[in-house]
Amino acid sequence: MDFDVLKPLLKTDMKTKIVLLVMDGLGGLPMTPDGKTELESARKPNMDALAVHSMLGLQQPILPGVTPGSGPAHIGLFGYDPIKYSIGRGVLSALGVDFDLQPEDVSARGNFCTVDEKGIITDRRAGRIPTETGEALCKLLMENVKLPGVELILKPEKEYRFVFVLRGPGLNGDVSDTDPQATGKRAELATAMVPEAAHTASLIQSFAEQAAIILKDQSPANSLVLRGFSQLPKWPKFGDAFGIKPLAIAMYPMYRGVAKLVGMDVMPAAHSMEEEIDMLEAKWEEYDFFFLHIKKTDSAGEDGNFDLKVNIIEQVDALLPRILALKPDTLVITGDHSTPALMRSHSWHAVPTLIYSALCRPDGISEYGERACLRGSLGVNFPSYELMPLALAHAKRIEKFGA
Amino acid sequence: MDFDVLKPLLKTDMKTKIVLLVMDGLGGLPMTPDGKTELESARKPNMDALAVHSMLGLQQPILPGVTPGSGPAHIGLFGYDPIKYSIGRGVLSALGVDFDLQPEDVSARGNFCTVDEKGIITDRRAGRIPTETGEALCKLLMENVKLPGVELILKPEKEYRFVFVLRGPGLNGDVSDTDPQATGKRAELATAMVPEAAHTASLIQSFAEQAAIILKDQSPANSLVLRGFSQLPKWPKFGDAFGIKPLAIAMYPMYRGVAKLVGMDVMPAAHSMEEEIDMLEAKWEEYDFFFLHIKKTDSAGEDGNFDLKVNIIEQVDALLPRILALKPDTLVITGDHSTPALMRSHSWHAVPTLIYSALCRPDGISEYGERACLRGSLGVNFPSYELMPLALAHAKRIEKFGA
Repeated sequence: MDFDVLKPLLKTDMKTKIVLLVMDGLGGLPMTPDGKTELESARKPNMDALAVHSMLGLQQPILPGVTPGSGPAHIGLFGYDPIKYSIGRGVLSALGVDFDLQPEDVSARGNFCTVDEKGIITDRRAGRIPTETGEALCKLLMENVKLPGVELILKPEKEYRFVFVLRGPGLNGDVSDTDPQATGKRAELATAMVPEAAHTASLIQSFAEQAAIILKDQSPANSLVLRGFSQLPKWPKFGDAFGIKPLAIAMYPMYRGVAKLVGMDVMPAAHSMEEEIDMLEAKWEEYDFFFLHIKKTDSAGEDGNFDLKVNIIEQVDALLPRILALKPDTLVITGDHSTPALMRSHSWHAVPTLIYSALCRPDGISEYGERACLRGSLGVNFPSYELMPLALAHAKRIEKFGA
Repeated sequence: MDFDVLKPLLKTDMKTKIVLLVMDGLGGLPMTPDGKTELESARKPNMDALAVHSMLGLQQPILPGVTPGSGPAHIGLFGYDPIKYSIGRGVLSALGVDFDLQPEDVSARGNFCTVDEKGIITDRRAGRIPTETGEALCKLLMENVKLPGVELILKPEKEYRFVFVLRGPGLNGDVSDTDPQATGKRAELATAMVPEAAHTASLIQSFAEQAAIILKDQSPANSLVLRGFSQLPKWPKFGDAFGIKPLAIAMYPMYRGVAKLVGMDVMPAAHSMEEEIDMLEAKWEEYDFFFLHIKKTDSAGEDGNFDLKVNIIEQVDALLPRILALKPDTLVITGDHSTPALMRSHSWHAVPTLIYSALCRPDGISEYGERACLRGSLGVNFPSYELMPLALAHAKRIEKFGA
């Protein structure tokens, strides 16, 4: 959606409420050519009953054939074209570890690696060192690297991965990767891509050189590489762009992070789906827009556990009456992307979507599933960023365009 | 598809294989309002069986309502937006006669025409002179026109049509047409549209003036006009743009030419559909992407021969098991455009399309036909250039976008 078109049409004085219920990795595939998908297999009487009075369709998170990462997929659901509004790798990594990025921070994704005596990378993952080793190396570097005028923060992720953050005045993230993303090569020099990034690039290069010396006698993690230097993007805030007061409810850092990135208020980490609904109920009067994220559908898909994914969908269905009891003006049920258990990974397949509102033109389809959605009025393969304007419209939050 | 988005996502080390089977002019119309189209009428048990496990839809080669020429229609199937990647008329004509265009060659489409004593065009087709006369006139001009420092090549097409080529250093095709494309007018002056084309324009104008003298006493073809001066476009090569090694198999020059234009390897002309499949089998190990072109569906449509078009589709269906026996990871079956026998011409109607892959989400539709495709998950009126990313995705050749 073009924010410039939408902005003057927003009815910001409305008190109507919207729930965006995202079952992560919802879309699926049948395990056998003649079988049903996870969603089609689930017994979900509440969603199916809702479907009769809803609009159905299949959305495309990025582009046909392109498998979305979680970050861009959510950016699309939040109404931003994820091609145009791209998030740097460093920022995504920081969001994934719940790091509280400040506007000027420059972050990057780091890998500990193994180099030979000539500095040539022989293993980009340093033999997948244990997470505790990665933590210890981050600590060692933070204690010994000296960078004048800036703060260095290294936040361990899993195994050989960590988040690199520089904090200080006047930093600029337009710096080239040191990670050549291949073995058999040396780490690259960090260089400024724009003149204003020269100081930041020299700090990063100094870090890389000090780190090489400090790690020299470690084994197998005797060096490191960095990629995706980036800063928090300066995007229109979700609340301003859509004239609505938003709250994010999620169990995992990445999803709270992406919500924070677009300026949503964010609840502390919930510990169960039930607790997420508790939070929704508790905050119902205070906010107008609720992003409610369910992680376990994706995890089950990634594990190749078809039956568990079916079961999680059934659990969400059982919680649906609590959401409906709040009487949202618009309820969107969708996924950020597909994660078919068959593929054990994210995939490019279009994502089943349902919009329920008293003002929707019901499709009269009595099932919520991939193939049922083919016949729905939302259409097939529409961009996910079109959902937000539709959700707003069905909550009477968009004025007439022209007279 | 935006090549810049796709390029970093390509998995170029995959060995998976894709077949793009194009039945030229596949889309059709019923001969009576209650009837079936050519594709719907054909008995095609193999395609229908495949449809059950495939994704179906209707693609739009150019824009809704716009009838495609063969060149742009194929450019779209090859993944290039045919509006953005437009081919000059001269280049298309050269491809159509199997002319081996070199990167610097400037080519144009030529018409012999009839002019009156004042040089005013009275017949743009010179009374449709016999093809042999056209050939003799091309020879006459090549022997007698003198153009310093460049080679002149005139390649006869059919009747009054020929391809004009200038070959030499420093040529530039940005030159205006001499063809006014109307009777009652004189030929225009060839003029440079950019300063760098001044030399080329003067050579072309010199050719036009010498030709007018040499042809003066001929009848009815006593002059000529040229249009669509152009050079081979500098586009991303198909193999680079999609990270795949492509081979084109076709019976007619135009289709081999368009494939060559995007940098595909091209087999010599096949003489039958069976021979095309022989070639596919013979080259299966050597390439990853196979563009397989069937011409006769279009020819039958152009002739208004509904039954013959049905019969050709049935012949292709009978050959399908040989293609499937090779176990392509993705098989796309579509047309470049519609050529309804009812209209005896190319048309703007959307083109039925099927993508088969073990990784597709099957639509469960048990027929491959225009109306069946309406219900498919590829959607209705999607741009044909989206097929390539989808084909690549279903052959596991695209990485995740973002994290």
